[in-house]
Amino acid sequence: MRRREFEMNDVENREEIESFLQEMSFGFLGTVTPDGEPGMTPLNFVYTGGSVYFHGSRIGEKMTQLKANERVTFMAAKEYAIIPSYFTDPLMACPATAFFKSVRIAGRATVVDDPHEKAAALEALMRKLQPEGGYKTIDADDPDYVPRLKGVAVVRIDADRITGKFKFGQNAKPDMIAAITDGLANRGLPQDAETIELMKQYCPHHKQVIGD
Amino acid sequence: MRRREFEMNDVENREEIESFLQEMSFGFLGTVTPDGEPGMTPLNFVYTGGSVYFHGSRIGEKMTQLKANERVTFMAAKEYAIIPSYFTDPLMACPATAFFKSVRIAGRATVVDDPHEKAAALEALMRKLQPEGGYKTIDADDPDYVPRLKGVAVVRIDADRITGKFKFGQNAKPDMIAAITDGLANRGLPQDAETIELMKQYCPHHKQVIGD
Repeated sequence: MRRREFEMNDVENREEIESFLQEMSFGFLGTVTPDGEPGMTPLNFVYTGGSVYFHGSRIGEKMTQLKANERVTFMAAKEYAIIPSYFTDPLMACPATAFFKSVRIAGRATVVDDPHEKAAALEALMRKLQPEGGYKTIDADDPDYVPRLKGVAVVRIDADRITGKFKFGQNAKPDMIAAITDGLANRGLPQDAETIELMKQYCPHHKQVIGD
Repeated sequence: MRRREFEMNDVENREEIESFLQEMSFGFLGTVTPDGEPGMTPLNFVYTGGSVYFHGSRIGEKMTQLKANERVTFMAAKEYAIIPSYFTDPLMACPATAFFKSVRIAGRATVVDDPHEKAAALEALMRKLQPEGGYKTIDADDPDYVPRLKGVAVVRIDADRITGKFKFGQNAKPDMIAAITDGLANRGLPQDAETIELMKQYCPHHKQVIGD
């Protein structure tokens, strides 16, 4: 069951959701195939102007699916920490869990025909994934890019609903939060310090326990 | 278009696919909702005995979807390296790409009722995600675990088809492979050395160029 405490939406939490989508280099496109099966494809993407854009070959399975059914789901998720059971229980395996961020976008996919929109989307994708530059700006009027833009498919997903689930122990009692925080601090894996900061940010009880 | 050169399957490449699924702590479950929309959920999972297992609440959106439509897709993907355009082209943005591994399983989901199968699946999940131990083995006959096993839903996905896409420059010409290898070696991000090793493993031209 999706618990309210973990949920974010793009009205109350727009900045955090957009920042997460900007940080994630790839996500997953969910489609429904013509014969009613769920399809899924990992994709590099950019979220800009309230829409997700991705590019790909003009022919193939993905495009066939999108043309048959425009309703899609796009999702990106990042796991921050596996929380072992023994952080909070010396015996039972049950408390083992994982802390993560995920954002899910339900929307409609449209193949973009306008070369200027295609160029702008691909330029936004390049600035996200290759922020150091080292290429000529993608411009729909640049003769070098004109044939390339014709040869690539760009798809825009217009979002009907954006929901995030940022799970960092929000449902745990104060003593559990303290035990998990201690466990992460002692373990010291690369993302554990960041996970503690996110627990401080998202756990309602954290401030009382940690005293900051 | 999905290019044959990147594709793996569980007959020819079973070991590499299983090893990748064992390494990935989470993946994405794709479903079709009762009203025909694609649903998606990130999940910790274990692949054991030829099936994917995951657990969750016995009630909620995901279970409703699975009961309405057993056909699911499960996917895990890992991005190894963003390959910037300037590794191979000083001007155009077009060669920018990403190297990754992904595995997609199309199958049918069944809610597991047998407490022994539930216990074995959850124990396999624990051994994968908490290999250091620190908990009492999950046993369907252990009175401490009996009520817990009743309270959790375990789902098995029986695979109809397993396909992998391991993209490490297989379609690139030898001089491009050499340029990408040099670029990665000079950049030296945490996963770049491993990416070079994977290019050596998967690129048919690599041996000629690198000379090993």
